[in-house]
Amino acid sequence: MKLDINNYIKFWAKKVDSWLEQYVISNSQYIDGLVEAMRYSLFAGGKRLRPALIYSSFGIFDGYFDKVTPFAAAVEMLHTYSLIHDDLPAMDDDDLRRGKPTNHVVYGEGVAILAGDALLTKAFEIMTSSSLNPDVDPVMMLEAANKLAIATGEKGMVGGQYADLKAEGGFFNDGTVSFIHLNKTAALISYCCELGAILGYATDEEKKDMSQFGKKIGLAFQIIDDILDLTCTTEELGKNAKSDLKKEKATYPAIFGIEKSRKIADDLIFSAFGILDKYGEAAVPLRELASFVVERKN
Amino acid sequence: MKLDINNYIKFWAKKVDSWLEQYVISNSQYIDGLVEAMRYSLFAGGKRLRPALIYSSFGIFDGYFDKVTPFAAAVEMLHTYSLIHDDLPAMDDDDLRRGKPTNHVVYGEGVAILAGDALLTKAFEIMTSSSLNPDVDPVMMLEAANKLAIATGEKGMVGGQYADLKAEGGFFNDGTVSFIHLNKTAALISYCCELGAILGYATDEEKKDMSQFGKKIGLAFQIIDDILDLTCTTEELGKNAKSDLKKEKATYPAIFGIEKSRKIADDLIFSAFGILDKYGEAAVPLRELASFVVERKN
Repeated sequence: MKLDINNYIKFWAKKVDSWLEQYVISNSQYIDGLVEAMRYSLFAGGKRLRPALIYSSFGIFDGYFDKVTPFAAAVEMLHTYSLIHDDLPAMDDDDLRRGKPTNHVVYGEGVAILAGDALLTKAFEIMTSSSLNPDVDPVMMLEAANKLAIATGEKGMVGGQYADLKAEGGFFNDGTVSFIHLNKTAALISYCCELGAILGYATDEEKKDMSQFGKKIGLAFQIIDDILDLTCTTEELGKNAKSDLKKEKATYPAIFGIEKSRKIADDLIFSAFGILDKYGEAAVPLRELASFVVERKN
Repeated sequence: MKLDINNYIKFWAKKVDSWLEQYVISNSQYIDGLVEAMRYSLFAGGKRLRPALIYSSFGIFDGYFDKVTPFAAAVEMLHTYSLIHDDLPAMDDDDLRRGKPTNHVVYGEGVAILAGDALLTKAFEIMTSSSLNPDVDPVMMLEAANKLAIATGEKGMVGGQYADLKAEGGFFNDGTVSFIHLNKTAALISYCCELGAILGYATDEEKKDMSQFGKKIGLAFQIIDDILDLTCTTEELGKNAKSDLKKEKATYPAIFGIEKSRKIADDLIFSAFGILDKYGEAAVPLRELASFVVERKN
């Protein structure tokens, strides 16, 4: 079995997008501008890699994919909030993302902060909604929401972003870089893979496998991101190239150089493949997504 | 029955504080500074009015108060995040809160944004944690978390804050002011009162009563806040006095004047009392808290 991975990702992206399209809407003239700002970043052309990971992991254990869509949409909201806040002047101070001006450039800093806050909050609104998820067991919903919070809070993504912010200016070692990458990026990607397993009523061991697989490809994803920042143009990336270098950010290439960093990423993907061995054909999409992560050009 | 309301609030505050004290801790040198920033605002001397409301509403329906504490702590985290983000330069730009420098003044804007994000996320972590809340039915936990998200998202608190931000500079009418107050402040206070009922396995009608009661006292709370901003000194308030006036903020006194605003607040409290009539003696604490809201001096 061989997948056209780009079409595969787009297939799931469409499902998530049409769900988001209907769900993120204003109910009052007083918040029209806020919802517009939320939608601006939500529909700015993200690849929707995280939803594809969730559906693919779920597909190993279950086939009722519609059940997954609100959860995938919630994760994409949470991911979008993290990008909006990361781009703020007080954080990474980026003015370009996916080829478009960042949220605060268009709507101002105050609105960008609030749009991020609202997207973050709404992710949990969706994951805890019994009416949106009538076919999901309440205990599973709690597990999904709780693990999302852990993966993205101070002991996960936000903690990684904090360490990243503090490490700017060249004061870091390989321990710092590992911590940052594991938390800033890999924690949420790992969660996505585990989430598919949770929703598919997988066993604890299977959930752990998916989580481990996601951690490895999440780390590889960030290493490749750092390499692309150095080797691509701003046009190719859709965001300002070499910005890590300018800010003396804690990255793998800064510690190990480009060649060794790519080797580390390749090794991680190889090791991630190993985890999937026992899942056979059902894991083909996850395997292809892992390859996509290291082979992507932007 | 007559309560010493200040001691009553302090009694519950202690329970929440000692729970928070143990729960909000760092697990890595890389996030020590972030957790310090979270704790700085969390323990900056807030009155813990919202926890008192939750416990008091709960007490009408049930007596097993320990069950409530993680939820009350979560709400206080969420309230604290909203204060940190509201105080940011891109928002209300306040440098003083509860007599102390605001979070971004001490830790910088980037860290303050992240500390807020982490507190918001952690509130949902707690409310969805089966291990922290072994005695709460999963369906109730989902209802509690879901209604919190709705009360504080773009159709609640964040929406109110957005309208507040946009209304600065004098472009508002009484419709705007009502929208802002109902969402920015009353939505969370109303939720607190309903949360007590949810955790106490109250009926839908009882939950609605508590929610309505909370909405009225929440609105009164914000009106009194606006009046105190005009009539108190910075020292009395612990935050910069007359800051609403300087920013031409949308407030009740700006529309109706101080005297009529106070009358509106008193009427709201009177009407809130009416809702409690059928709950008799069990509702004394809630009644006293309502009085406290309009009689407080800072």
